[in-house]
Amino acid sequence: MLHVFGHLNPDTDAITSAVVYAGLLTRQGVEARAFRLGEPNFETAYVLRELGVELPPLLPELPAGAAVALVDHNESAQSVENLAELRVLRVVDHHKLGDLTTASPPYLRFEPVGCTGTLLLKLHREAGLSIEQQDAALMLSAILSDTLHFRSPTTTGEDRDAVDFLAPVAGIKNVEAYALAMFAAKSDLGDTPAETLLRMDYKAFPFGDPAAPQLWGIGVIETTNPGYVFRRQGELLAAMDHVKAEDGLSGVLLSVVDILNETNHTLVLGATEAKVLREAFGVETQAQLANLGHLISRKKQIVPTLERYFAPDA
Amino acid sequence: MLHVFGHLNPDTDAITSAVVYAGLLTRQGVEARAFRLGEPNFETAYVLRELGVELPPLLPELPAGAAVALVDHNESAQSVENLAELRVLRVVDHHKLGDLTTASPPYLRFEPVGCTGTLLLKLHREAGLSIEQQDAALMLSAILSDTLHFRSPTTTGEDRDAVDFLAPVAGIKNVEAYALAMFAAKSDLGDTPAETLLRMDYKAFPFGDPAAPQLWGIGVIETTNPGYVFRRQGELLAAMDHVKAEDGLSGVLLSVVDILNETNHTLVLGATEAKVLREAFGVETQAQLANLGHLISRKKQIVPTLERYFAPDA
Repeated sequence: MLHVFGHLNPDTDAITSAVVYAGLLTRQGVEARAFRLGEPNFETAYVLRELGVELPPLLPELPAGAAVALVDHNESAQSVENLAELRVLRVVDHHKLGDLTTASPPYLRFEPVGCTGTLLLKLHREAGLSIEQQDAALMLSAILSDTLHFRSPTTTGEDRDAVDFLAPVAGIKNVEAYALAMFAAKSDLGDTPAETLLRMDYKAFPFGDPAAPQLWGIGVIETTNPGYVFRRQGELLAAMDHVKAEDGLSGVLLSVVDILNETNHTLVLGATEAKVLREAFGVETQAQLANLGHLISRKKQIVPTLERYFAPDA
Repeated sequence: MLHVFGHLNPDTDAITSAVVYAGLLTRQGVEARAFRLGEPNFETAYVLRELGVELPPLLPELPAGAAVALVDHNESAQSVENLAELRVLRVVDHHKLGDLTTASPPYLRFEPVGCTGTLLLKLHREAGLSIEQQDAALMLSAILSDTLHFRSPTTTGEDRDAVDFLAPVAGIKNVEAYALAMFAAKSDLGDTPAETLLRMDYKAFPFGDPAAPQLWGIGVIETTNPGYVFRRQGELLAAMDHVKAEDGLSGVLLSVVDILNETNHTLVLGATEAKVLREAFGVETQAQLANLGHLISRKKQIVPTLERYFAPDA
């Protein structure tokens, strides 16, 4: 049985793509089942509730040699702990290729589009399979989430075309209203503990010399209500300090992305982080906040800039 | 401009797939051009001559940051020397995923089929593009070459279907006769120097601890005339000894695959190689030859067995 799952700290794409890809494989005669590597965020919970889709179970501990399919990620730091022991048979992803290797020829489908959902739609069409209403709604939700409804610079023409195609199949008449409801659900953070907020959309990246990389943790909070986050700045900085020590990080950042205004104010823990933001992005830190302007994509803007900054021959 | 090329010591798939993929990309509006990383073997030269296709030029030295597309390979040991400095934007391959990483999200298309040509046919069909007669003949030739006209255990149903589809488009009525002519051309080795024979279809593989791998060189001579090779055994062993020292290898093997009888007799340089063949494959070496029976696929049979044998936790 093929275990299909997205990355740690799952977002809507990570969860829905596991569900949709497992369904596609099952229809193609591959015994496959969707799992998740963590708790859904408020946006994902909203989407599943709205669409009447059951949350896939947490991935159980897999024995060495178990067959897995990765969606929406490929780097070991973002995956299940014993990934190196597992047989990765398939990957569908839209991120840069990291440290993944395989023991035998895999199915890999990577394209530089805004969302795994866009690729999954393509896979259905290439296989000549009809799109079920629920799958259409799941893929649509993932694309709206990953691209912030086309506000993110990661958006491609294929993502827009996919949404145009999927909306009628999904029976979603007002895509703009649906996206805003998703973003409002995501922003309704209530009394979520600060460390949970930090880790909700959080990834660790190795930078610099591959033989001895330094690990940076980068969290993102995409919200239509940034004021809520700034009111909790003290708590969040304490959580960042704790995570930095616990995970042995060289640095930690938390970007607060205002979805509607498309701006990024990043929480800066200390002098190390402030120096890197100054030298890599040319921005000053004031009151432990750095204004990164319209740099709202971790994948396309923040991480590549840090990668160049830390590159050994730079 | 995107530089498209296959692996070092190119075979028919490596050369023809570069030509066909560069053509496909050009038709899709991507400025792309085919190159090669070495001299064509006798089979490839025959194919290009028969089909009236110009040999792509040797890849010139590329400056850091140049954009490249890899076909039929992905491991750095099998690619251009400064691969780590280049921007790998696309890979179409049917081998296991090795040490490749990318700086940004790439196009990756890997499937566990017998030949890159089979994938390229799929890419044409998915893009809704007609197949030109010459491209059809190139893809067909690659599939016949890589699968030894379906004799290799790497052959899949998709490779057979691709040949069925391509033969009439290519205007090749008797596929069996065409394949035999290709294999005869490949076997007509004349007075080729022994080291050239060894390096003609040769790949280096890192085995064991990824942090300190041992490198093994594995050459294959697929031939309808194995007697010719065995008559030159002394020269070939001397060439293996020389290559082992020159390339700093831990071991070197040269498999002589009798295409028509589907058997593999492997030349064994010394005690190190004999020990590994005994322990990994259970075969004894006699007169510096080991009979590996019907294990004729380096990719699917020889390398995976050696990988398991050298695995750190084995």
